[in-house]
Amino acid sequence: MSTIIDNIGLLVTPEAELANAAVLIDDGYIAWVGAAASAPAADDRIDAANGCVIPGFVDSHSHIVFAGDRADEFEARMAGRSYTAGGIRRTVALTRAATDEQLLANATRLIAEMRMQGTTTVEIKSGYGLTVDDESRSLALASTLTSETTYLGAHVVPVEYADDVAGYVDLVTGRMLEACAPHARWIDVFCEDGAFDVDQARAILTVGIARGLGARMHSGQLGESGGVRLAVELGAASVDHCTFLSDADVDALAAGTTVATLLPGVEFSTRQPYPDARLLIDAGVTVALACDCNPGSSYTTSMSFCMAVAVRDMGMTPAEALRAATAGGAAALRRDDVGEIAVGKRADLVILDAPSYVHLAYRPGVPLVGRVLSGNVADVRAMAPGAA
Amino acid sequence: MSTIIDNIGLLVTPEAELANAAVLIDDGYIAWVGAAASAPAADDRIDAANGCVIPGFVDSHSHIVFAGDRADEFEARMAGRSYTAGGIRRTVALTRAATDEQLLANATRLIAEMRMQGTTTVEIKSGYGLTVDDESRSLALASTLTSETTYLGAHVVPVEYADDVAGYVDLVTGRMLEACAPHARWIDVFCEDGAFDVDQARAILTVGIARGLGARMHSGQLGESGGVRLAVELGAASVDHCTFLSDADVDALAAGTTVATLLPGVEFSTRQPYPDARLLIDAGVTVALACDCNPGSSYTTSMSFCMAVAVRDMGMTPAEALRAATAGGAAALRRDDVGEIAVGKRADLVILDAPSYVHLAYRPGVPLVGRVLSGNVADVRAMAPGAA
Repeated sequence: MSTIIDNIGLLVTPEAELANAAVLIDDGYIAWVGAAASAPAADDRIDAANGCVIPGFVDSHSHIVFAGDRADEFEARMAGRSYTAGGIRRTVALTRAATDEQLLANATRLIAEMRMQGTTTVEIKSGYGLTVDDESRSLALASTLTSETTYLGAHVVPVEYADDVAGYVDLVTGRMLEACAPHARWIDVFCEDGAFDVDQARAILTVGIARGLGARMHSGQLGESGGVRLAVELGAASVDHCTFLSDADVDALAAGTTVATLLPGVEFSTRQPYPDARLLIDAGVTVALACDCNPGSSYTTSMSFCMAVAVRDMGMTPAEALRAATAGGAAALRRDDVGEIAVGKRADLVILDAPSYVHLAYRPGVPLVGRVLSGNVADVRAMAPGAA
Repeated sequence: MSTIIDNIGLLVTPEAELANAAVLIDDGYIAWVGAAASAPAADDRIDAANGCVIPGFVDSHSHIVFAGDRADEFEARMAGRSYTAGGIRRTVALTRAATDEQLLANATRLIAEMRMQGTTTVEIKSGYGLTVDDESRSLALASTLTSETTYLGAHVVPVEYADDVAGYVDLVTGRMLEACAPHARWIDVFCEDGAFDVDQARAILTVGIARGLGARMHSGQLGESGGVRLAVELGAASVDHCTFLSDADVDALAAGTTVATLLPGVEFSTRQPYPDARLLIDAGVTVALACDCNPGSSYTTSMSFCMAVAVRDMGMTPAEALRAATAGGAAALRRDDVGEIAVGKRADLVILDAPSYVHLAYRPGVPLVGRVLSGNVADVRAMAPGAA
């Protein structure tokens, strides 16, 4: 079964932006890319209506297995009021108390939101269970939704281990890891003052890597901790946040293979300083953008919104923001089958109700995703209002 | 024909936020509001699925009769490059060259976008014609889309009058006014350094008022000009932008009947300073939020996006932002039939895919408008993905 997408006003490929283009999809993969005038025959046809076609977004950082929300905490923070209802630990308590069905329903709702907005690959972390059983069930649930699952037992130290952080690290690297590893591709740690320090992060990631998991890290959200250099040293696929970076951190990122994943939704929703994407790109660092969807610091699922903020507040051009939200995310997940429109890649495509991807930043907040095509072309569905 | 909307998780009325509520619509108007348990019988039923129900947004400031876009100008501005391709005058040239059908198709597309995102009342300005014929046709086209049409011949001085501003003011207050007034409810002027000064603005609005139009004004976007006090003095329904205000301006607004309409999309898309909504609200000024949809400084149609930015960057609470985007917009248009959920008002309602309107700021960029009901209940349609 082959399908031609034609009448593409602007097609974004790694090499060039093509006007009047077409894409041939065969059995869920991109089989041909070129000028509409020389498009090959196909069994089926999709008319892009002169819109811009971009790769599906790769959202490489989410925490969508959770219960409840923290709208009240958000409201208090925006009003400048202090709020001591527990932060992440509040979500941990609600998540532990929820049934599997409740957790899966909530995550499935958020996946549908993401997909409607053009996201075709998503990573999902655990980290609101923080017991052996609750972390492993979070990952088992997440693995029904994506192959990009990340074990984040080291999200925060749970209240019951507040006086025994070493004991919690032992759990995370011992029984919890054994229970979680079968459901996870990645291991992650929040390396930051108030969470886990560099020595603990090294211990956690090293054991996870030995167990066959790929390494990721949260660091540089609240201050410099040495976590970024550790991530590079350990060959982590990505280090996420990267607002607070030393010159040595930037040099390490530029020399290494670790992607810097920036999460503008966090800074938007917390009024913390934005990371300097311009500095990183100019230094030669590979940058990704992701939503960090979670109920505390960034409850957005909109990659377009993150791109708009990245262009306004982080020094990225629209083209850089798009690349970071697609190929950058793929690099952060070490995936070579998604994130670009090229022959051999998965047919994960977004047809925009706009003549250019620039409109994703130029028209902030507007739902411009007209149609989302993902994977096997038999799965092609109209997901968004423009295609209804 | 009556319809009950029940299973409302949270209903926002002027007096209170009601849990477990219902609304009765009869012949396009709200006939009853109260607890779901005591809802009256009706011919038809809409299940709000425990979502939050808010008034439809009233977007009291738009410029959607135009041709072309200025994505390249946006991109250059974001990159810090100077850009001298003409600004508003470039859109004027493209608009003059467009056919009626092209202008109407573009405006209709933007109206559909607005509606899909929960806007049920919209104002539309002219201002990209700047000749007698082009201004009057812009208003004639706009009047097919809304009753809230605004004559903005005094948007900028067109190139052909660059050396004869007085001559252009004569035209705006003379032949152009005569041609436009039959299609307009309002008259507006851009009172700012580089556009029209206070004396010119006074002349333009005074003549328009005498011709039976209501007065509005753009002022305080780029600096203080005295325009805000003039707007209050003349009893303008609204003065829009209001970033740069003197203490005397704030005092005048607080003592008068003129609404201060704030346009966060402009500051987001230009990186200019945000207006201080907190200061205005605390001073007792009625504040509205609007999109200012236009291809130069703010090409958004998303009232939710504007609310999110207003909460983050302008000191508004989510409840204040919602009120400004609904009742505030209604006040800015001197409309008492829209903007609130109360008996006797038009049944312009939005059912959110969220438990609270707080989520409009807490979940930036996410399309949470599940269903839009407007006017006559026979017109009820599913407009958004959640209802598809």
